[in-house]
Amino acid sequence: MSKTGIKVFAPATVANMACGYDLMGFALERPGDEIIGRLVDNKPGVHITNIYGDKGKLSKETMQNTAGVAAQKFLDHIGDPSIGIEMEIYKKMPFGSGMGSSAASAAAGVMLANELLKRPLRKQELMPFAVAGEQVADGAYHADNVAPSLLGGIVFIRDNETLDFHRVSAPPGLYATLVHPHIRILTKDSRDILSDTVTLKQTITQNGNLGGLIIGLYKGDFDLIKRSLQDVIIEPQRAQLIPGFYDVKVAALQENVLGCSISGAGPSVFALSNNNLNAENAGHAMQRAFAKHKIESTVYISKINSEGAILY
Amino acid sequence: MSKTGIKVFAPATVANMACGYDLMGFALERPGDEIIGRLVDNKPGVHITNIYGDKGKLSKETMQNTAGVAAQKFLDHIGDPSIGIEMEIYKKMPFGSGMGSSAASAAAGVMLANELLKRPLRKQELMPFAVAGEQVADGAYHADNVAPSLLGGIVFIRDNETLDFHRVSAPPGLYATLVHPHIRILTKDSRDILSDTVTLKQTITQNGNLGGLIIGLYKGDFDLIKRSLQDVIIEPQRAQLIPGFYDVKVAALQENVLGCSISGAGPSVFALSNNNLNAENAGHAMQRAFAKHKIESTVYISKINSEGAILY
Repeated sequence: MSKTGIKVFAPATVANMACGYDLMGFALERPGDEIIGRLVDNKPGVHITNIYGDKGKLSKETMQNTAGVAAQKFLDHIGDPSIGIEMEIYKKMPFGSGMGSSAASAAAGVMLANELLKRPLRKQELMPFAVAGEQVADGAYHADNVAPSLLGGIVFIRDNETLDFHRVSAPPGLYATLVHPHIRILTKDSRDILSDTVTLKQTITQNGNLGGLIIGLYKGDFDLIKRSLQDVIIEPQRAQLIPGFYDVKVAALQENVLGCSISGAGPSVFALSNNNLNAENAGHAMQRAFAKHKIESTVYISKINSEGAILY
Repeated sequence: MSKTGIKVFAPATVANMACGYDLMGFALERPGDEIIGRLVDNKPGVHITNIYGDKGKLSKETMQNTAGVAAQKFLDHIGDPSIGIEMEIYKKMPFGSGMGSSAASAAAGVMLANELLKRPLRKQELMPFAVAGEQVADGAYHADNVAPSLLGGIVFIRDNETLDFHRVSAPPGLYATLVHPHIRILTKDSRDILSDTVTLKQTITQNGNLGGLIIGLYKGDFDLIKRSLQDVIIEPQRAQLIPGFYDVKVAALQENVLGCSISGAGPSVFALSNNNLNAENAGHAMQRAFAKHKIESTVYISKINSEGAILY
């Protein structure tokens, strides 16, 4: 078998998209994780030889690493016990950031394995393995980061359990601003803070906005997208975990973004704009707003990534 | 001014569509209400001269009648205090049935007035007057019946307060079955029975189904529509108001409908199918199921009405 290494890339993602908690996410063009890997003889299974950029925090044990699990579950499915894969993981984004770091590694891991074996499965068929990989990181089986990281675009997941996922059109001109404040909140804390109940009125409002967002994306109606990018359920509860969140949001809205909310479980904050200039201006304004709260941050500006994980 | 009478028709509608409580509805081709009306001299304002088919239950007082209010509010907007309109209302569907009877009359009322004045407003501009008309019937300002009755098709209302409404494509072949059991429940009771709170998990499930339904309608993906036509919040609470509801639902599902739930506030039950035969078979099966509970019913089979209120 060939020992030639290949390299794959899987992008950062923004889950929830304001009104689509647990059901919706989109992919950025940058940043993202990279994995270099190769087939190896006489060493069955998936082996992680090195991880760079994680400051020693991630496990190299295959079954305790999102990329390792995703690739190994894929190999188990293929069912040839002789196949061996070695990989080095290059973490190029922070984890615990709300940018889908563990999902990107999982997507890259299974993408790598599928490419090394000359694509026995189509990309969307890799979803269950990637989701199982990400599950190692936070215990939940949900695809709102994994799906866009693997498939690209904006993805709506009707049902996470059955992985009933659907690509939704992204209108040309849609740009994302992602601001990562250099603080850390745990996904678990971010989930534990949420109330188990919501009012019927909140549910109707959230439903209305979610439907409006999907229709707005299909129609390319930026005004409708703008009216719909509101989260009346999750954001009000999680905002307290991010110092200065509302100042950052106001700063973004003053730059004419379509909407601004928490990216995934936070602490990153995202905005969507209908052109790159608004997206860039919002990035500067949001960073300044965090700075007033003595918080350093990193800004990413990106079109919606339409490819997802790629051979690189 | 001309005294020639004209006749308008506005159709019955199914609100909620399972997962779209308060936000979504569609129009049937039949049944519907008819109004005949004419301009009159020296008698300013809207006058209801007769109502047929209501068994004397509806008020002929303009401001206590949905059609009267809708037409009068339109006249107030036009602002010519000399205009007089006489109308006779032909109720051709039961009220308190969950078929949008009061909304159809409101839609027909304002449609009539606009047509008599040679269409000073476009159809969608008539919405606020029609919604204000329907409000007389049940106090709530919501458009999930009025919008499809006036505009036709499937309508999603992002926000009822601002009437942010949007037509959603109906795939060819989509047929509705509507079964009206001859029992009466009050919209008020049907609202009062609902809990003010829902669980976060239910909200996510409902959000997923609503998004799935909208995407399924846009894509013409009947399998996705079928998976999405589920109501985990409202139907379980209201089913108890309709004797035999679950037997009726099972009977429909056994005829391969896409989904079956309560029409509006009930007691009518609707199903959607991807062809007319399934819709007809479901109608028979649902009627038999009600009959086993000693309840007579009327069955309506219809394509999705794409026109809404029309000059007739």
